[in-house]
Amino acid sequence: MRRNAIAPQSRIAPRLAFAGLAAMLLAGCATTATDPPGASAGEAAPPRTMAEVLEAAPDSDWRPIDPERLLVLDLPGGPVMIELAPAFAPRHVANVATLVRAGYFDGSAIVRVHDNYVVQWADPAREDPSRRRSLGSAAATLEPEFDRPMAGLGPFVALPDGDAYASEAGFVDGFPVARDGDRAWLVHCYGMVGAGRDNAPDSGNGAELYAVIGHAPRNLDRNVTLVGRVVLGIEHFSGLQRGPAPMGFIDEPSRFVPIARVRFASDLPEAERPRLEALRTDSASFEALVEARRNRRDPWYVRPAGRIDLCNVPLPVRKVPAWVR
Amino acid sequence: MRRNAIAPQSRIAPRLAFAGLAAMLLAGCATTATDPPGASAGEAAPPRTMAEVLEAAPDSDWRPIDPERLLVLDLPGGPVMIELAPAFAPRHVANVATLVRAGYFDGSAIVRVHDNYVVQWADPAREDPSRRRSLGSAAATLEPEFDRPMAGLGPFVALPDGDAYASEAGFVDGFPVARDGDRAWLVHCYGMVGAGRDNAPDSGNGAELYAVIGHAPRNLDRNVTLVGRVVLGIEHFSGLQRGPAPMGFIDEPSRFVPIARVRFASDLPEAERPRLEALRTDSASFEALVEARRNRRDPWYVRPAGRIDLCNVPLPVRKVPAWVR
Repeated sequence: MRRNAIAPQSRIAPRLAFAGLAAMLLAGCATTATDPPGASAGEAAPPRTMAEVLEAAPDSDWRPIDPERLLVLDLPGGPVMIELAPAFAPRHVANVATLVRAGYFDGSAIVRVHDNYVVQWADPAREDPSRRRSLGSAAATLEPEFDRPMAGLGPFVALPDGDAYASEAGFVDGFPVARDGDRAWLVHCYGMVGAGRDNAPDSGNGAELYAVIGHAPRNLDRNVTLVGRVVLGIEHFSGLQRGPAPMGFIDEPSRFVPIARVRFASDLPEAERPRLEALRTDSASFEALVEARRNRRDPWYVRPAGRIDLCNVPLPVRKVPAWVR
Repeated sequence: MRRNAIAPQSRIAPRLAFAGLAAMLLAGCATTATDPPGASAGEAAPPRTMAEVLEAAPDSDWRPIDPERLLVLDLPGGPVMIELAPAFAPRHVANVATLVRAGYFDGSAIVRVHDNYVVQWADPAREDPSRRRSLGSAAATLEPEFDRPMAGLGPFVALPDGDAYASEAGFVDGFPVARDGDRAWLVHCYGMVGAGRDNAPDSGNGAELYAVIGHAPRNLDRNVTLVGRVVLGIEHFSGLQRGPAPMGFIDEPSRFVPIARVRFASDLPEAERPRLEALRTDSASFEALVEARRNRRDPWYVRPAGRIDLCNVPLPVRKVPAWVR
């Protein structure tokens, strides 16, 4: 059976965080805990593929995604779920929360699909002063949160292979982060979510959000506030037809993609509430995953790269099956 | 008028090679040639935006894209155009040409849309030995062309900011290239096109091709033969609904996306023949463009990165208007 596949290894678990393959991971979930928690996955262990790493990851190497930080967007194609990053953008995350809880995003719409760049959503009447939604008690402007001190953050797990844009790159609490000395910032990897702004640095308030759907636009780092990342359902953003107007804007409101409702997972009825877990980026399993992705063990590869850049490291997310709850 | 736009500078000319904004460049085409050919765009010139660089680029800094190397794919959404790279993959490009001229790809289909990874097209009946198309006089296997010697290539224009995967990265004849010492290879940037293969390194033959539609999967570099890149119409690939089966395959043939016809531009009737030009990557204008993208001058930016990675450098392409011909 001929099926040229470029890279059959990805049959196993490509870009788990984004590919909506969480269901596949449920098997892994049921068969984990064969490795003792904290067992070294470093030099002494034999080389493993990413699938093997995930299958062997003990439950303690997974963390629940806090439903109080998890947004659920209802799109025509299915739900998109976003984990917020209050450690990096406390003011913006609080403002987004105010807007979400006031129903600001219910009946909002995707107004821009810019190829190899971003999807952006907002009040569809935002350009009409007579019809646009009120921000209610949310702030209209916010002091930017483009970067922050390293001090006070969770553990920074550095990647070994350098970065074209910063002195170091790695992960903090599951988020891709770059740093120069004492300053750290979230990085515009695929799936990251930010707060659009006008030219004034304080003009972003979270009422207009975007998600990266292309090669990491690192030029945006430290120029706009990132608030989180898509952990499930990115394909409902990225698979949309591109907007025909300049910058990918959709110029006919009748062609806006509707967002019926945005809720915090914690505000959904128990039966509807998604329960997700992410691999801890400060775990031995994650260290082994990075190594597995730097040096692919799958038989398809003839020359493992031996290197990896920040935005090529997948962030595995799995659904916790209902019967575990 | 409030229109949070993340990065208004991209209103001007974002990712021209891929964004289908060639029409916008026609104005630039009509107003060029104010700079003398060969004028230095380097240190002495004042900082410019990319739009300013392109507007000032003399005609001599553009090269025609050879219609004998330009494939035109007819998709439901519009044409996708691919410039082939015989300098890097002579055997694969020749085999693809044999297949194209035999009509092999007429009535082929997109069989895979893998989010943040690739779109792949092939004979829709390729898995059925009784129905699949004959390769005709094309080869069924080909010696891989994963890399090649630097010697004999056109000028290598190195980027200044390093690369996480190779000792140097830059451009040769418009294509993104990495090198280590005397070896050079095409890089899996967004829009690059390659020949899928099975586990045997010689199993790729160009009958099944893919295009990158996500963050550059650099792990594939030197593991699979790249044959060219999309220069126009990538949005007709990247904006497709993702395939529901593992690895983004489309499991129901009725949902394959048809490719009505694939032709070389040179084989099209004169009236239908696209005429494209690309900015020469060994020109002063391109050097100025790289600098403009490393340090954005647009008023939106508060902190230009001062750096750029290979796959964030746009490769401007413009249509030559009919009245010039």
